[in-house]
Amino acid sequence: MIHGAAAKIQAAGGVRTLTFDASAPLRLSSGEILSPLTIAFESYGALNAERSNAVLVCHGLTGDQFVAGPNPITGRPAWWPRIVGPGRPIDTNRLYVVCANVLGGSMGTTGPASLASDGSPYGLRFASINLADMVRAQAMLIEALDIESLFLVVGPGFGGMQALQWASAYPKRVFACATVASGARQTAVAMALSELSRQAIMADPDWRGGSYHTLGTRPLKGLSVARAASQIGNLAELALRDAFSAAAATERFALAAQLDEARPNSAFVDRFDANSYLYLTRAADAFDLGADFGGNLSNAFSHAATRHCLFSFSTDWRYPPEEGRRLARALLAAGADAAFIEIESDKGHDAHLEEDAQFEAALTGFIDAAAAARGLSLQVGVA
Amino acid sequence: MIHGAAAKIQAAGGVRTLTFDASAPLRLSSGEILSPLTIAFESYGALNAERSNAVLVCHGLTGDQFVAGPNPITGRPAWWPRIVGPGRPIDTNRLYVVCANVLGGSMGTTGPASLASDGSPYGLRFASINLADMVRAQAMLIEALDIESLFLVVGPGFGGMQALQWASAYPKRVFACATVASGARQTAVAMALSELSRQAIMADPDWRGGSYHTLGTRPLKGLSVARAASQIGNLAELALRDAFSAAAATERFALAAQLDEARPNSAFVDRFDANSYLYLTRAADAFDLGADFGGNLSNAFSHAATRHCLFSFSTDWRYPPEEGRRLARALLAAGADAAFIEIESDKGHDAHLEEDAQFEAALTGFIDAAAAARGLSLQVGVA
Repeated sequence: MIHGAAAKIQAAGGVRTLTFDASAPLRLSSGEILSPLTIAFESYGALNAERSNAVLVCHGLTGDQFVAGPNPITGRPAWWPRIVGPGRPIDTNRLYVVCANVLGGSMGTTGPASLASDGSPYGLRFASINLADMVRAQAMLIEALDIESLFLVVGPGFGGMQALQWASAYPKRVFACATVASGARQTAVAMALSELSRQAIMADPDWRGGSYHTLGTRPLKGLSVARAASQIGNLAELALRDAFSAAAATERFALAAQLDEARPNSAFVDRFDANSYLYLTRAADAFDLGADFGGNLSNAFSHAATRHCLFSFSTDWRYPPEEGRRLARALLAAGADAAFIEIESDKGHDAHLEEDAQFEAALTGFIDAAAAARGLSLQVGVA
Repeated sequence: MIHGAAAKIQAAGGVRTLTFDASAPLRLSSGEILSPLTIAFESYGALNAERSNAVLVCHGLTGDQFVAGPNPITGRPAWWPRIVGPGRPIDTNRLYVVCANVLGGSMGTTGPASLASDGSPYGLRFASINLADMVRAQAMLIEALDIESLFLVVGPGFGGMQALQWASAYPKRVFACATVASGARQTAVAMALSELSRQAIMADPDWRGGSYHTLGTRPLKGLSVARAASQIGNLAELALRDAFSAAAATERFALAAQLDEARPNSAFVDRFDANSYLYLTRAADAFDLGADFGGNLSNAFSHAATRHCLFSFSTDWRYPPEEGRRLARALLAAGADAAFIEIESDKGHDAHLEEDAQFEAALTGFIDAAAAARGLSLQVGVA
């Protein structure tokens, strides 16, 4: 299944990885070279004979490659089971779904916690990376899997930004693109939240200038502030007000404990590398697809044959519907086929993870129509 | 000048204070009693013979009583010299201006750093306080100064919230009320920023569960994150993007150093008590004048004879113009005389501190018209 001699596939502890040796380095936007490069990924469903039914799911900021099945390391369930699986909108009975841990992450893909050539973790010696680098690494994985063109690239939030970067950088290799609660750049508010998260991590004495791995400490307090920032950004304004009112009645200052109890990701500080959080949030903050094209977002998609669907949720202030509309205008101005769909929800950014019949029906409709246009049958081939 | 035997005025180290003894305790909204109560305040100009030209300026979250002259403790200049002073919109040639350090603050007024009856700082033993308590303490000061009715209550941001609380709680004692870059409640975004600030302070090992005064440490790292949160919230979205772009080009993760250089309040961590920050931000987050009146903001002003002017700045996302409009609608529905003025600016929340001819002209107009309606002459009397 793996294409090219430079890549080697391995599986250990429930994590499947593909490693590219020195003959296939990742050339970063900064000009630096990253090698060896390991990409941890999962797949669900089967590739058809034409290799035309592949879907790449790009995970969110604090997500991982286990989009449709349990994470064997953390024991956490699949993060998007309502969307990816048999009979779900991204139907693994007929689609081949790949999800890779992002470059710079800490679930098996090369990142700041990986060992550098001297045998110690990179830490802050890890190169600066941006969204284009992350997508470039994913493209190397997709090529190694011998998939010439993706049927669909899709992702929520930070993952949706990567999907857009895919559509911009590789327009001929993306048949359809769906962004969910995402945008072509972050709002100032989202940047502010992630800047504060970084500050809190770096202010933690156990961060040790980023060398905590080597020095045997863990900046758990800083990370828990980062986690709180992420949770806060995911809530709708009304839910946040309610949380503050409840906190006022019980404890005087902290919301974090309550938020952690109310949500499933309480083991965040145990599973997420603090330096990864710095690198990934910094890359997300720096992403501005329009700025990369002279301030005209349409130019980012000027060779676009890709069909787009953009989903926003009405109470999502981290990736507000306004940004979805801006993106839709730019895509339409570029002559692309683009639909913008705003879903009414009281769940804020988190709505993309919750049960939502309207969202699921619209996503199913977009995918089914694209599948028909692509000539995908309901029958599954063999990889 | 001081009215009532319970109050005693003192001056030490450039800070003037009024202390109420046990015969005049502050009754808090929580039901608790705070005594003794010390209020640090400054005044500018002179009270006229009719005692009708008094203005109360309520300072912002990280401000102090030194609105129109230098702070003798920190050496910092006046924080609102463009607005308050001889010939300025709040003209000390004809108005008597009082500005008090807020209850819970750390510039002389009783707060968590003050000594409790056992001789140790209160720390987290300090009672929960809300905006109504802060205004109640200010009202005690104003009464002690023998001022029956204020000509004007005015404040930016957090100070504007207090001004609204004044107009709601003491409608007959407030002739005019001006809020600047403020609102009747905080946005979820502002609450999120302050929650993260609190988390960062409490995550600092030197915070020591709030007992750092007694234990001889100072949570400077946590406070510097709080400071960054405050600075970030004050910038316009575009300025924030620029700051992030500049940071991307120079250092990889931190904005704080740049922001501190760019702004005058770099001694923040040296002058501000960390526990004060917890108490004040929590009170600000909990403030929702509409919620206090059954969800109908108009009811907060149902007996209003006060004339209002509400200033918002177009790029202020911490206290957005939308909130100013909501407030104006509520005031007008309550039958109040209320003008909403949105000033175009690219300075974000910080616009209220910067030179802005439109803002200054409109504020001057409002005050002059109110002064004419109050029958204030240009001549200054003697207190």
